[in-house]
Amino acid sequence: MSKKEMLDKMLQAARQAAVALAKAETPQKNETLQILAGMLRERAGEIVAVNAKDVQKATQAGQSAALIDRLTLTPAGVESMAKALEHIIGLPDPVGEIHDMTTRPNGLRVARMRAPLGVIGIIYESRPNVAVDAFALCAKSGNAVVLRGGSEAAQSNQILGRIISEALEKGGLPVAAAQVLSNTDRELVKHLLRARGLVDLVIPRGGERLIRFVDENATVPIILHYKGVCHVFVDKDADLEKALPIIVNAKVQRPGVCNALETLLVHRNAADEFLPPMAEELKEKGVELRGCEKTRAILPDIKATEESDWDAEYLDLILAVRVVDDLDGALRHIARHGSGHTESIITENYTSAGRFLREADASCVLVNASTRFNDGGELGLGAEIGISTTKLHAFGPMGLRELTTNKFIVLGSGQVRQ
Amino acid sequence: MSKKEMLDKMLQAARQAAVALAKAETPQKNETLQILAGMLRERAGEIVAVNAKDVQKATQAGQSAALIDRLTLTPAGVESMAKALEHIIGLPDPVGEIHDMTTRPNGLRVARMRAPLGVIGIIYESRPNVAVDAFALCAKSGNAVVLRGGSEAAQSNQILGRIISEALEKGGLPVAAAQVLSNTDRELVKHLLRARGLVDLVIPRGGERLIRFVDENATVPIILHYKGVCHVFVDKDADLEKALPIIVNAKVQRPGVCNALETLLVHRNAADEFLPPMAEELKEKGVELRGCEKTRAILPDIKATEESDWDAEYLDLILAVRVVDDLDGALRHIARHGSGHTESIITENYTSAGRFLREADASCVLVNASTRFNDGGELGLGAEIGISTTKLHAFGPMGLRELTTNKFIVLGSGQVRQ
Repeated sequence: MSKKEMLDKMLQAARQAAVALAKAETPQKNETLQILAGMLRERAGEIVAVNAKDVQKATQAGQSAALIDRLTLTPAGVESMAKALEHIIGLPDPVGEIHDMTTRPNGLRVARMRAPLGVIGIIYESRPNVAVDAFALCAKSGNAVVLRGGSEAAQSNQILGRIISEALEKGGLPVAAAQVLSNTDRELVKHLLRARGLVDLVIPRGGERLIRFVDENATVPIILHYKGVCHVFVDKDADLEKALPIIVNAKVQRPGVCNALETLLVHRNAADEFLPPMAEELKEKGVELRGCEKTRAILPDIKATEESDWDAEYLDLILAVRVVDDLDGALRHIARHGSGHTESIITENYTSAGRFLREADASCVLVNASTRFNDGGELGLGAEIGISTTKLHAFGPMGLRELTTNKFIVLGSGQVRQ
Repeated sequence: MSKKEMLDKMLQAARQAAVALAKAETPQKNETLQILAGMLRERAGEIVAVNAKDVQKATQAGQSAALIDRLTLTPAGVESMAKALEHIIGLPDPVGEIHDMTTRPNGLRVARMRAPLGVIGIIYESRPNVAVDAFALCAKSGNAVVLRGGSEAAQSNQILGRIISEALEKGGLPVAAAQVLSNTDRELVKHLLRARGLVDLVIPRGGERLIRFVDENATVPIILHYKGVCHVFVDKDADLEKALPIIVNAKVQRPGVCNALETLLVHRNAADEFLPPMAEELKEKGVELRGCEKTRAILPDIKATEESDWDAEYLDLILAVRVVDDLDGALRHIARHGSGHTESIITENYTSAGRFLREADASCVLVNASTRFNDGGELGLGAEIGISTTKLHAFGPMGLRELTTNKFIVLGSGQVRQ
């Protein structure tokens, strides 16, 4: 059997499993996740030992410290996976949830019911915990999952895949509900990305190169995000007491993540008062500022921004600063340089807040709050499988609900159409 | 400039227009649609005369009577287009609608806000009214639209496109918000279907060949449906007084449409009592029955079904009938032969109704009601741009809301992340 035929066989098995999983009741799904949590704890030693082989190989291959860090599983890391499972067990099951019911003039009650999507492909890189996390979210939302991790985590993914299979079996769910693609061949991934009719959705999780590969090759539906070039706009009517802590938080609390602040926009009427204390505070926190000409007229000590700074996702303690003429200028800058990820305005002005919420084109738009809140947990989703900056189906963090579709249901009492 | 370069230029203009349209307030959008309705009425004579040239050409080319019927615009047809616009004017504007607000423990108020998708491509066949309808739905939901109709309606589409442009100009909206692709070259359509980053969604409207072409060539997101192989399942606990009128309505009221009934499934315990009166009534209405072996044991006069009947979308006064052992048998038949479109169960049984609603995999699942209700108007959407049997983003009839995405909005008072 060729590799493609094997993949097709896997996907067909996944489709069959998806039908069973869609019907599975909440207690059975939760029980299976609890069995898995128990097995992870029991076999933590074995998991860590197998993972150490991947780590050793990656070290010998001269991989970066960042990759090795993402790859490494410690006993505490395994415990975190088990805890994440227990957290997902506690979340409400979206499948079968009925909402938005209305009654038509003929007495028909029309509503929407959440139903699983079917078969979901997750393509990820070096973090082995993604396998457990993604499986749990897909299973809880009634979907089968096909997992394809990075080759550097091959052995870790294999053992986690085997443990997941055993948990499915013990829980009485079909083993094909979660399958790990052991062959990490790129051609095979391409085939997965083009398996229309067999795969309902692919979500890539990883760096820009992986995202681009998926984006360029997929013909199945995909949901993804490239990067976060996030802005805070300090309006002329900003409460400067709120602005400073928000900017510090958005830039400094965790600079390496996609919802961290990268470019600060300041209304020219607020610049003189706001920029000097801000610069002082950020300097203290070790942040390097880069400013436009108008910014440097007020903060002469800082570096000049270059054209490329407006599109940069620094993921570091660097902040670009631009003085703009007004709200329209800020919105124009965001339209041109934003990544559709996260945008925040600091203002006490009713009209400016309303316009910014509506006109800033991003998955999450905030008023008087840190960009760092664009996160599934912080927004109340309970858990997230990823974040979407593509607008179709889901925009922003995706939780259990976003792994379902909504079908119409109609409750009648014998109605016929006139 | 090559044809592809021209298309790219059109799409870039559409993107610019989409930004303006996303900001446009409801009164301005409605006013523009009202201007268009007035212009259609004023210029009805001219529209009908231009359309007559397309009709003449199609007749000379020996096109089918059905195509000529779809292509022909009468003065009454133009009035219908104007009335459809006024209907859309009356519908609530989805853009900026805030819903599902919750308050987080830190006081942040988190909600979803509906926002336009951006640029939508509509690929359709011979019905010229699609141009006006689709434009109105896209514009009202804040989206720019690129319209590509069939070559047989080229002149009709051109004049409607020009009138739409004039209405946009008079209404103060960007003319590029609606553009008609005058070149109907297939290669150009392929280019449109692959314009990732420029086109946010393509919706094809037409026959199976067109749908397949779009499905096979698109890399941009698409929403489509192929066909409707719809079932009614008469359960053992059916109220047979309800069953018969529903089946007659589902099969006979308009047999040529996608939500008409094609295959009837009958529980074996209900077959003896139900099939004879049903056969009599349907025979009177001119319906040809085709039955499985068990059906023919009760109705010996009817034709035998062949394997292909279970997958047939007759769109005609023909009904396939199969006796099944139980609800599971009915669900298995639907899983294998259904098209994800519309499924109905006739039952008084609580558990059967609940299981059918949840387990029948279709965009609309009904209890004790005719399949003919799977329609945007009947389900309360106000108007529909199409129907989706793809699960991502929309499943079932798509109205104005389905032409929007949901972004997260966060209303804060200075919160920072801990």
